[in-house]
Amino acid sequence: MTDHFSEPLKVQENILEVTMDYLAVGIDPNLSTICVQSLLTALPEITMYFLNLLTLNQIERNPTVKEEIRQKDFGNKIPVGFLIYPVSQAADITAFLADLVPVGADQIPMIEDTNFIVRKFNDMYGAGTLKECKAKVPEQFSRLIGIDGKAKMSKSLGNYIYLKSTSDELWTQVKQMYTDPNHIKVEDPGQIEGNVVFTYLDAFDENKQEVARLKDQYRQGGLGDMKIKKYLFEVLDNKFKGIRERRLELASDKAQIIKILKEGTLKANEVSQATLSKMKRAMKMFEFV
Amino acid sequence: MTDHFSEPLKVQENILEVTMDYLAVGIDPNLSTICVQSLLTALPEITMYFLNLLTLNQIERNPTVKEEIRQKDFGNKIPVGFLIYPVSQAADITAFLADLVPVGADQIPMIEDTNFIVRKFNDMYGAGTLKECKAKVPEQFSRLIGIDGKAKMSKSLGNYIYLKSTSDELWTQVKQMYTDPNHIKVEDPGQIEGNVVFTYLDAFDENKQEVARLKDQYRQGGLGDMKIKKYLFEVLDNKFKGIRERRLELASDKAQIIKILKEGTLKANEVSQATLSKMKRAMKMFEFV
Repeated sequence: MTDHFSEPLKVQENILEVTMDYLAVGIDPNLSTICVQSLLTALPEITMYFLNLLTLNQIERNPTVKEEIRQKDFGNKIPVGFLIYPVSQAADITAFLADLVPVGADQIPMIEDTNFIVRKFNDMYGAGTLKECKAKVPEQFSRLIGIDGKAKMSKSLGNYIYLKSTSDELWTQVKQMYTDPNHIKVEDPGQIEGNVVFTYLDAFDENKQEVARLKDQYRQGGLGDMKIKKYLFEVLDNKFKGIRERRLELASDKAQIIKILKEGTLKANEVSQATLSKMKRAMKMFEFV
Repeated sequence: MTDHFSEPLKVQENILEVTMDYLAVGIDPNLSTICVQSLLTALPEITMYFLNLLTLNQIERNPTVKEEIRQKDFGNKIPVGFLIYPVSQAADITAFLADLVPVGADQIPMIEDTNFIVRKFNDMYGAGTLKECKAKVPEQFSRLIGIDGKAKMSKSLGNYIYLKSTSDELWTQVKQMYTDPNHIKVEDPGQIEGNVVFTYLDAFDENKQEVARLKDQYRQGGLGDMKIKKYLFEVLDNKFKGIRERRLELASDKAQIIKILKEGTLKANEVSQATLSKMKRAMKMFEFV
């Protein structure tokens, strides 16, 4: 709702879409709790308490926030909800007393803000109430570039590939990938750096030897963009085939998705309410006995 | 907690103190619901939704916020919780679909911000969901100056009079009141404008004729500060006597205060949760059926 408050129905639809993506790529709901954030009523309460512990300057200094404000072209019309997003993320993390938070490299400042808030809360209200966490960033490809080679994938920029893409859609997206703009004729030598096709091959092709061979050939000249894109398409299409099939299967039983989400949300509510109660006791908030 | 997040126990104590003040001055809990705001879990949720509808610039433009930031001497360390206080106030008001909000004149910009949010919410999510309100400002003395003649009464500035003050405490505060610094000798002519003693006489002495006579005498010279302060003290002491006695009586039965607060909080929770549900339906938020 922070990003799409003017299109709430889209957010509602996305909840099921994203859940199906999670399940299709192999996240096991018996091991990982999948929940609907807007139904966790402890989170806005925790966010409000955290907002007292941070200054406006501290939030404005967060480089991820700065970068996203720049990208979204808000000018001087920054919605306050967007600005305080790191604080709401800190609530999302600390409500579950998380140790490790799997994030892209661009989210590391968010984790730092979270730990700052945790330390401040514990110093002020009681040591050990909340838990500091660590970012778990993949060693490679901690952030996959969009197909335009410019920014993180985003629907509004149109530079995305959906996990649910059909083969045709996938080929359309691969064809549009940014390569080397100076690599015009097949026999021209081409550049690998910043070339999205090779970035994706590095990320997705398990045949590293073949990728190394193709890179050499591209650099020397003699490997056309269409040919290498066709090769990448095959790699991705093979990778996505299983996901796509599981996703279709999942989509045929929406009731099952709803059930998984409902159970996860119940469980997440319990855990986050317990953390909120612990915080309120530490803060010596008024309560009726 | 916004103002006193570092002293939560003080906030807890103040809850009973303020409730006793309300009851002592005659607020009838059968007509007016008295509740503990921090126990109304709908309010932080409503606040979070509102935060998406306002820009940082709009909040920073609020003259009441500006003035309070200046008074509190935050420099560039403005807690975000303090900055977004108008939004949290908008939630306090709209959660109860209030028509009329009794406030001091200094709070009018807060009411304007609230109505801006209400219009934006209704435009975006559904006409008639939330209600615009009007400020109910007393015609006279919409904001009583502190005894220093400089600012609104505040404990940290030490320029306050407590409703529960004993006669001795009251006299101590009246003696400290700011008068006319150029009115040194009894026979000197004195100034009425900005003279806190006369401001309080205008506000509290029902004998308007006597006040007019005393003003004339003070202007011409011949009325000493000590004498006029003694007169004001008698007026206030008579006014406060009944309040003070009722307050002592109330303080002897804390269980009764807790009961009133508990019933009020239950009722306020019902009403504010109903408004939140209405908002979420209008926003087409995800819900399990």
